[in-house]
Amino acid sequence: MGSTTGTLFCVTTFGESHGGGLGAVVQGCPPGLELDLDLIQRDLDRRRPGQSSLTTQRKEPDHVEVLSGVFEGKTLGSPIALLVRNQDADPSSYEPTRHLYRPSHADYTTDSKYGIRNWQGGGRASARETVARVAAGAIARQVLSEMAGVEIVAWVDTVGEISAGCDPNEVSWDEVEASIVRCPDHGSAQKMEQLIKEVRGKGDTIGGVIRCVARHVPAGLGDPVFDKLEADLSKAMLSLPAAKGFESGKGFRSVGMLGSEHNDAFEPLDGSIRTRTNHSGGIQGGISNGMPVVFSVAFKPVATIFQPQDTVDTDGNAATIQPRGRHDPCVLPRAVPMVEAGAALVLCDHLLRQRAIRGDFQARETVP
Amino acid sequence: MGSTTGTLFCVTTFGESHGGGLGAVVQGCPPGLELDLDLIQRDLDRRRPGQSSLTTQRKEPDHVEVLSGVFEGKTLGSPIALLVRNQDADPSSYEPTRHLYRPSHADYTTDSKYGIRNWQGGGRASARETVARVAAGAIARQVLSEMAGVEIVAWVDTVGEISAGCDPNEVSWDEVEASIVRCPDHGSAQKMEQLIKEVRGKGDTIGGVIRCVARHVPAGLGDPVFDKLEADLSKAMLSLPAAKGFESGKGFRSVGMLGSEHNDAFEPLDGSIRTRTNHSGGIQGGISNGMPVVFSVAFKPVATIFQPQDTVDTDGNAATIQPRGRHDPCVLPRAVPMVEAGAALVLCDHLLRQRAIRGDFQARETVP
Amino acid sequence: MGSTTGTLFCVTTFGESHGGGLGAVVQGCPPGLELDLDLIQRDLDRRRPGQSSLTTQRKEPDHVEVLSGVFEGKTLGSPIALLVRNQDADPSSYEPTRHLYRPSHADYTTDSKYGIRNWQGGGRASARETVARVAAGAIARQVLSEMAGVEIVAWVDTVGEISAGCDPNEVSWDEVEASIVRCPDHGSAQKMEQLIKEVRGKGDTIGGVIRCVARHVPAGLGDPVFDKLEADLSKAMLSLPAAKGFESGKGFRSVGMLGSEHNDAFEPLDGSIRTRTNHSGGIQGGISNGMPVVFSVAFKPVATIFQPQDTVDTDGNAATIQPRGRHDPCVLPRAVPMVEAGAALVLCDHLLRQRAIRGDFQARETVP
Amino acid sequence: MGSTTGTLFCVTTFGESHGGGLGAVVQGCPPGLELDLDLIQRDLDRRRPGQSSLTTQRKEPDHVEVLSGVFEGKTLGSPIALLVRNQDADPSSYEPTRHLYRPSHADYTTDSKYGIRNWQGGGRASARETVARVAAGAIARQVLSEMAGVEIVAWVDTVGEISAGCDPNEVSWDEVEASIVRCPDHGSAQKMEQLIKEVRGKGDTIGGVIRCVARHVPAGLGDPVFDKLEADLSKAMLSLPAAKGFESGKGFRSVGMLGSEHNDAFEPLDGSIRTRTNHSGGIQGGISNGMPVVFSVAFKPVATIFQPQDTVDTDGNAATIQPRGRHDPCVLPRAVPMVEAGAALVLCDHLLRQRAIRGDFQARETVP
Repeated sequence: MGSTTGTLFCVTTFGESHGGGLGAVVQGCPPGLELDLDLIQRDLDRRRPGQSSLTTQRKEPDHVEVLSGVFEGKTLGSPIALLVRNQDADPSSYEPTRHLYRPSHADYTTDSKYGIRNWQGGGRASARETVARVAAGAIARQVLSEMAGVEIVAWVDTVGEISAGCDPNEVSWDEVEASIVRCPDHGSAQKMEQLIKEVRGKGDTIGGVIRCVARHVPAGLGDPVFDKLEADLSKAMLSLPAAKGFESGKGFRSVGMLGSEHNDAFEPLDGSIRTRTNHSGGIQGGISNGMPVVFSVAFKPVATIFQPQDTVDTDGNAATIQPRGRHDPCVLPRAVPMVEAGAALVLCDHLLRQRAIRGDFQARETVP
Repeated sequence: MGSTTGTLFCVTTFGESHGGGLGAVVQGCPPGLELDLDLIQRDLDRRRPGQSSLTTQRKEPDHVEVLSGVFEGKTLGSPIALLVRNQDADPSSYEPTRHLYRPSHADYTTDSKYGIRNWQGGGRASARETVARVAAGAIARQVLSEMAGVEIVAWVDTVGEISAGCDPNEVSWDEVEASIVRCPDHGSAQKMEQLIKEVRGKGDTIGGVIRCVARHVPAGLGDPVFDKLEADLSKAMLSLPAAKGFESGKGFRSVGMLGSEHNDAFEPLDGSIRTRTNHSGGIQGGISNGMPVVFSVAFKPVATIFQPQDTVDTDGNAATIQPRGRHDPCVLPRAVPMVEAGAALVLCDHLLRQRAIRGDFQARETVP
Repeated sequence: MGSTTGTLFCVTTFGESHGGGLGAVVQGCPPGLELDLDLIQRDLDRRRPGQSSLTTQRKEPDHVEVLSGVFEGKTLGSPIALLVRNQDADPSSYEPTRHLYRPSHADYTTDSKYGIRNWQGGGRASARETVARVAAGAIARQVLSEMAGVEIVAWVDTVGEISAGCDPNEVSWDEVEASIVRCPDHGSAQKMEQLIKEVRGKGDTIGGVIRCVARHVPAGLGDPVFDKLEADLSKAMLSLPAAKGFESGKGFRSVGMLGSEHNDAFEPLDGSIRTRTNHSGGIQGGISNGMPVVFSVAFKPVATIFQPQDTVDTDGNAATIQPRGRHDPCVLPRAVPMVEAGAALVLCDHLLRQRAIRGDFQARETVP
Repeated sequence: MGSTTGTLFCVTTFGESHGGGLGAVVQGCPPGLELDLDLIQRDLDRRRPGQSSLTTQRKEPDHVEVLSGVFEGKTLGSPIALLVRNQDADPSSYEPTRHLYRPSHADYTTDSKYGIRNWQGGGRASARETVARVAAGAIARQVLSEMAGVEIVAWVDTVGEISAGCDPNEVSWDEVEASIVRCPDHGSAQKMEQLIKEVRGKGDTIGGVIRCVARHVPAGLGDPVFDKLEADLSKAMLSLPAAKGFESGKGFRSVGMLGSEHNDAFEPLDGSIRTRTNHSGGIQGGISNGMPVVFSVAFKPVATIFQPQDTVDTDGNAATIQPRGRHDPCVLPRAVPMVEAGAALVLCDHLLRQRAIRGDFQARETVP
């Protein structure tokens, strides 16, 4: 069902933007792992509202509580339940738009689907939902790091028309975190920050592109034909709020290339194998090839703008809406840990799946 | 597992490019449906190699046999097994490259994953695998059509640098099928055909973009948070051979738009509701809104080129490869029914899922 | 994975006997249901330790908190998260047996499986785990009751050698609850109570049989071939702590019958159809037939006895163990709501599955 | 969905008693296994109708064809599709009962569920369906044998009132196969054979009990809480046609035992651990403990009797039915390979699941 993801590293999330809180139940985490709660909290803090001048000013400490599955600091192999309470929900700001469908929000579609809706916020469609998957993803990162040395780094590569064009092989976590926009290119980061503030000044919003690289992913992950690695990564990304596009490797730019340009020639390297280029983004035939896994995600501008808009009310009559409340002018900076978490959940699941089919599984060496 | 897709309309496929054949087991098809086998064969014929001067000349009749689940022309509610035999497999053409990894193919990754590989063709990574999902998708199309009046049309919108830019609201099935490139814009189609032939003349290949529209999709389909409609569509598309990108609605182009430009204003229409624009591509918050569902898929150039390329052999030594055999210079024309089938499987599954949670489910009227 | 059950009414549980608490995430509950929290609490109270002189004296209020999925008293269609905190855990009583494997407990098998174990209690193998499924089952009961009028009643039919042999058609909830043993036959109940107290006096334990009837189950539930209704009920029952046997209808007693004795003749009844006998227990070919669904579950004697026993320590050396702590001498009285909850989860899941395949689904009339 | 079983060793079956044939798609079989087709055929031959004077005289060679997933005798890791054609279907014998519901068959429930039914035989409810799972189970047996040395033996322990009471530790495959009843106790076997023939002479049928032992099952298999090993075994058994009961270890007989009698004391054995008795049937807390896994399955008498019976027609009117056709007077002898196959599928799935969570997994030594 729709709130569960993963076959072996299997995560179920719950919670709405307004209500008791948000949480995740993580099944399949290998037993005996020393779980570092600070690493979970670190990613929650990176996702947290109010962390910088660029984000919504809703104040949520987003402190995570571990309810089960851990004993004396180690994972037991039983489900790990994580809970984050809501603290700064403000239903009153939604009161005026209670009977109106906010354009390009999930209000109308939620009503169409369920026949009922928690109008005190975005409910399950709120970006607040991602608290749960970021927390769960932080566990997946630890498993990936411990078992295979995998490192995942995402960054804001584009905001509006400003593109940093960073080289995935060069981007470092520290450079990303050094900027409140989470763009590792200092010059671009300043322009993006400027743009976001301008847009916010007009009560408007803006979209962008996040790129992500996963390094040291062992060759052999991905389960053809339907659960190809790209397919699962793509699903994870398109399940993020406001995501509208995904591409792997050269993606849409591969369209204009000839096969002779796009093909990644193999070459020997110190007893292992690498590809000379990485247009495939580390995935061939839906299976990782040991090169860095590289992909991009397009995010549309946030739907909540502080301008009057035409809409209809819940009775179907024409109306005008002008939302209030606290919202991000650009979701990109806070979406970076969401993208990383989504990638971690997919890769961790496939790592465990690969162990199941080949107990003797030794990853072919990955490229340093 | 990786060869099964869908929760309620659940399809399992099997088969390699060289071997006994390809097939699908379709579970969850509602009972009592008059199954039109000609419609299954029609889509297989549209996917078939050798159908035009633009495709590989492998000769496969791809005749489908129904092994179970149908009685006196009607579905029983039990699994429907479909079988298509391989007839024109030619292992000999793979003999010279048996010990070489073809660049940007799945040879190396398959070996890395399984430690074994059917070198007599692409195995499970071959586009021949899609026979099974196209056949299963043709059943899904019938269910969607019977139960909700849904119509799905895909077309080739871009080959290389040539873009047709067709309007999703205008494209008709007949126009698409009138062209061997499957581009409904006659002028663009001719240029694409020309380009593909040129590229083939050089032993090279070229990529492109397929767009798809699903009309009359009832509002309410999609299962937040992980099984949002876009997420499942995206996964289905990225599981197609050679697919490297997906976008929904404005997709990557939404990045440069302001929220005030991108938001789709609601307006009343004859007792129902529609949006004035459809930048969201018929999906908001991961749930269909009754507008046409529109998305695009990027396909890279086919990896098999008839030019010498650097690679390594299965022992890791540098080598040169020059494939032989019969391959498409451009996968796009034959990928059109694959995209439609993938979309049909996802939409049909979500239609059934929606019925389960709301037995009283009456689709809000969709836009004509 | 092992802590999730159900396809459409899908429940994930978490929590150990000693730790933060126990909980469940319920997915797929139809939206718009008026959720009666008192009914959840009622079943938790019936399962609660310390409820009578026959049970363990661990004191747990087992108050349930609803964290999500409900708004203004109604279900939203999003996941319903339920949390029950542990309050009276007593790790100290486990200290002396920390390095010993308790016979017929899960200590040794847990170590074998996970390589780690929370020795402060039974962990995930503790009957305390069933808090979560009883709470989730109480929601399933409400769905079944609202949507189909299904009523589920279980009772203690046998303790040791004392068998009540109650008629499933006659047993009422009130009669069951009138007895602390939960046996509706007053005479048998008194003997059972006596027996349990005697056994406890010797530091020993005793097993028994619970029977269960589900009335007004519509014909058509169950999904051949692997998810036959009996198969899923059986799995649900054998997943309960201490359960070692399951039978449907006549079960093991059918073995000595001829087909001519066992077959249930059909007969017309007021425009509907019933069977003259119900040896099949309401299920034929794995699908409900509209008659009462009747089955039995065998529970072994509780493994914790207060007598010295031979065992080994965690290093594999011979040792003697004499557990302390608070335990039930007979699990049967408290297992009644567990059996009902397990049945409710299975039936509710299949009710929703049936709605998915037949939107026009009208249950054939059930027998009054 | 109902025709798929298993999480990692995942089997989907299809086919009806009358139609193109029966088949299975096996996903998750580890790659590189030398697949012995003769072992698949051997189990199909043991299940085959017409194999002895005790069974139905329908003539089916049940020759299995492997359609995919195997190359040069080895498994590829891709889905293995198996197909067995129907050859001796005889729809005409069902013509007279086309509009009648056969008592204790699935005719009425199938109509209730699907609103349509293949009246030319039992459809999906026919025991013929088990061809597919026996074939798939034969692959699981090979995986279990290769990877863990597991051996599975089932036998007929009871027919009607005749019980052999064989010791699970002593029963050998050869002794079982030496008898057409498949009871390894020669004296009991003769009486059972006699009884079955007598019953058949009267146009009647009789039930019985099959016991099964799995030896050398490594400790650690089973996934609490819902997928306990007993739970999954129980589900597998209750999904067999005519199965009405399951018990693990002492099962229903544990009910009359005290904890002090039932508990299995641990003792050291040559550096490993064993239990002195095996009342638990090799499973504690839902996880295997290294001792032989022992369970029993009750089968009701076959529903098809050649005597007149009261029933109703498909319009609900009272009627009399007297079936014709070819049917077994006792399903037990042919059900032996079905029970073994079901057990193999469950154990193989859990073996793979255990590998996923513990890559370093080394089975604790099992008892010789």
